[in-house]
Amino acid sequence: MIPQRVIEAKRDGQTLSPQQLTELLTGYARGEVPEHQMAAFLMAVVFRGLEDEELATLLTVMLESGAVLDLSHLSPHRVDKHSTGGVGDKTSLVLAPLVACLGGMVPMMSGRSLGHTGGTLDKLESIPGFRTGLDLGEFERVLGRVGCAMIGASERIAPLDRRLYALRDLTGTVPSPALMTASILSKKLAEGINALVLDVKVGQAAFLPDLEDARALARTMVRVASERGVPTVARLTAMDRPLGHAVGNALEVAEAVRALSGEGPEDLVQLCVELGAEMLVTGGVEAGLDTARSRCRAALASGRARERFAALVEAQGGDRRVVDDPALLARAPERAVVHAASSGVVRSIDARALGWATVELGGGRRHADDAIDAAVGFEIQARPGGSVSVGEALGIVHARTPADLERGIARLQAAIDIGEDGGPPPLPLLLERIDAQAIRVRGAPPAH
Amino acid sequence: MIPQRVIEAKRDGQTLSPQQLTELLTGYARGEVPEHQMAAFLMAVVFRGLEDEELATLLTVMLESGAVLDLSHLSPHRVDKHSTGGVGDKTSLVLAPLVACLGGMVPMMSGRSLGHTGGTLDKLESIPGFRTGLDLGEFERVLGRVGCAMIGASERIAPLDRRLYALRDLTGTVPSPALMTASILSKKLAEGINALVLDVKVGQAAFLPDLEDARALARTMVRVASERGVPTVARLTAMDRPLGHAVGNALEVAEAVRALSGEGPEDLVQLCVELGAEMLVTGGVEAGLDTARSRCRAALASGRARERFAALVEAQGGDRRVVDDPALLARAPERAVVHAASSGVVRSIDARALGWATVELGGGRRHADDAIDAAVGFEIQARPGGSVSVGEALGIVHARTPADLERGIARLQAAIDIGEDGGPPPLPLLLERIDAQAIRVRGAPPAH
Repeated sequence: MIPQRVIEAKRDGQTLSPQQLTELLTGYARGEVPEHQMAAFLMAVVFRGLEDEELATLLTVMLESGAVLDLSHLSPHRVDKHSTGGVGDKTSLVLAPLVACLGGMVPMMSGRSLGHTGGTLDKLESIPGFRTGLDLGEFERVLGRVGCAMIGASERIAPLDRRLYALRDLTGTVPSPALMTASILSKKLAEGINALVLDVKVGQAAFLPDLEDARALARTMVRVASERGVPTVARLTAMDRPLGHAVGNALEVAEAVRALSGEGPEDLVQLCVELGAEMLVTGGVEAGLDTARSRCRAALASGRARERFAALVEAQGGDRRVVDDPALLARAPERAVVHAASSGVVRSIDARALGWATVELGGGRRHADDAIDAAVGFEIQARPGGSVSVGEALGIVHARTPADLERGIARLQAAIDIGEDGGPPPLPLLLERIDAQAIRVRGAPPAH
Repeated sequence: MIPQRVIEAKRDGQTLSPQQLTELLTGYARGEVPEHQMAAFLMAVVFRGLEDEELATLLTVMLESGAVLDLSHLSPHRVDKHSTGGVGDKTSLVLAPLVACLGGMVPMMSGRSLGHTGGTLDKLESIPGFRTGLDLGEFERVLGRVGCAMIGASERIAPLDRRLYALRDLTGTVPSPALMTASILSKKLAEGINALVLDVKVGQAAFLPDLEDARALARTMVRVASERGVPTVARLTAMDRPLGHAVGNALEVAEAVRALSGEGPEDLVQLCVELGAEMLVTGGVEAGLDTARSRCRAALASGRARERFAALVEAQGGDRRVVDDPALLARAPERAVVHAASSGVVRSIDARALGWATVELGGGRRHADDAIDAAVGFEIQARPGGSVSVGEALGIVHARTPADLERGIARLQAAIDIGEDGGPPPLPLLLERIDAQAIRVRGAPPAH
């Protein structure tokens, strides 16, 4: 295998043989193919894409570069959820204990904040003492005891993906549905799950804002994972505004605890019930979505899910009292309520801008080694499509310094567009559902 | 400047500002932008191309990365020729002394064999003692004395191009008209020439076989060089068969000497007269092409051009007696005549295959540090469109060993397609002429 011949073949739109692609990738993993050849190859993939067989080969090599967990002795219902990332998206914190308390097992490996989007690990670490860096033995013990565990991706899981992702981040080769699919699935399938639910975000603050792009990614991921024997369902959901009210790590943990206690907010609860029901059905715990939804709602209302979250926090070294007393979470010294300067209708809330504003306040990262201030962020009271009167509260800014507070106030004011008439209607929270069946029948003549 | 933002902009089809592009390239030259980021950028350029202003910026940075010669004190008629490369293309050996003896000055920096195509430096070095590695001081002295000099690209000339070319070769990013233009012109314009003639090959053995692609490259190069104040003409010429009869270094030198002595072969002489006339007119030595052609033919017939070549050989340390006695050139120990196995018409001669066969015989390189056997190669007697009778000589193979000879015979037989009726007609030797005027009036309404 001569690397430049493989690069040229992909550049020219040819389909690579499994052998060619495997040799290129394993050569890279062994350090024989240098970074610049892999970078050129990745850029050619951005333009040319990968055929299904090529994608399957890439995924196989990535999986086989590291450990693949076998958790089959713990539960037959091992299911995880992956989200493509958003602003205010704290669903993982609700879903893991919710599904665990209803009979599923959730071996969840998550990431950190990236760009304008938040990261589950950063949110969890705002809980005093919470350890996301468990080794795989501890991970398995927590899973066995609590039914769920939430850690960072182990260095033993898909190390090739880790290297490729770092290279993609530096070389403008992140936004490729094929590369995204291989990256996401290599980590998720290595968890030893037997079912997967994907939350593919759509709208202004999503990684792929466009519905068409999101749908294409969802279809590819569902197809590839299902063909590997892991039943997978994708939901396309709205990310044209923040999910829930809270944006910022500790603020989001507090809101997740409210949702786990059956206290809303409505959009977050609705999404968690929907994704939780999908996890229960795909994971084989429940047969029908309606029953599964009812069970999810009941577990939130009864406090069972919240109790399971407290057990998880305790099992991973965290202070379980935060579940009863969110005041134990970090709290920013500077806070201010932002009021509407005029009356009207909320035309839109710029979630992407609020995500970047949270980074600016210190709640996210510009560089991988930046420290995070867990306490800062926004609580947004306005909702798209709602009416506001002049002087009414739009939201609260939480900041570290008076200067930050002023900047945060300006950012929040700029992010909320109030007009005399409403703007384009916000996206429905739940847009589309894609499962393997839906893909197989695509384009087929109607049965009769 | 954040390199990945610049890469992403090019990936997404945006036009880069001169500042963005300059910072990326100078950052790379200084070692601050790593090879993998540059590789991804180059692949994005392969897909997206460069706008004229971007190309001008790239060319400027490449030129300014090294020395730009000022030879204006030596002659006002400094002109060079560049060919995109072919099989049997020994025109440079004829053109430099031909134009020099007619009043032009030719400061020619050339390359080595690449892939299936030959290289002027390798041909010259088959002359005993000939030194292509003169330093810039020696180069200038030979130019002043002989009117032409032929050396390898100095390491002081466009060092950024040298690095980029090595990277492109490894990363499948060679075939981009924009990158090729910048690479070629950065070296040629650094020679301190005030006129340039381009021989852009078309056909099966050309680097860009397709007429459309060759025309696009020619137009881009003519436009960019002319806009820098270096009048430039491109000729599109046939490379669907070898040029002349000889393929192989010493064999080509011997054929060049025959052409310099007015003894043909016809296609080589015609091309040299045409390109030589263009050089004289573009370089301001002659006003009209017809007069210039006549002067070229006369200089070949009279032996003046041949005498100037002998002076050049001597000035660069070579044995000038080879001009009178080609037997002083290296001669391969194994030789065989190949005969036609059937009667018919020569439908085609696969010049690309003969180029690779010459590499196989040891006359070219697979790797940059391979040694070259100057003596090996082919003398092809058959011509496309000509008739042959069974048993008639098609050509001669020159090889190092009996085994090589057998392989060479098989390669030559396979490369010459003889059929009952003729194939598609060979390309005319001279296809198109493109100058700055032709580009400016393109698409303009006819004057009347």
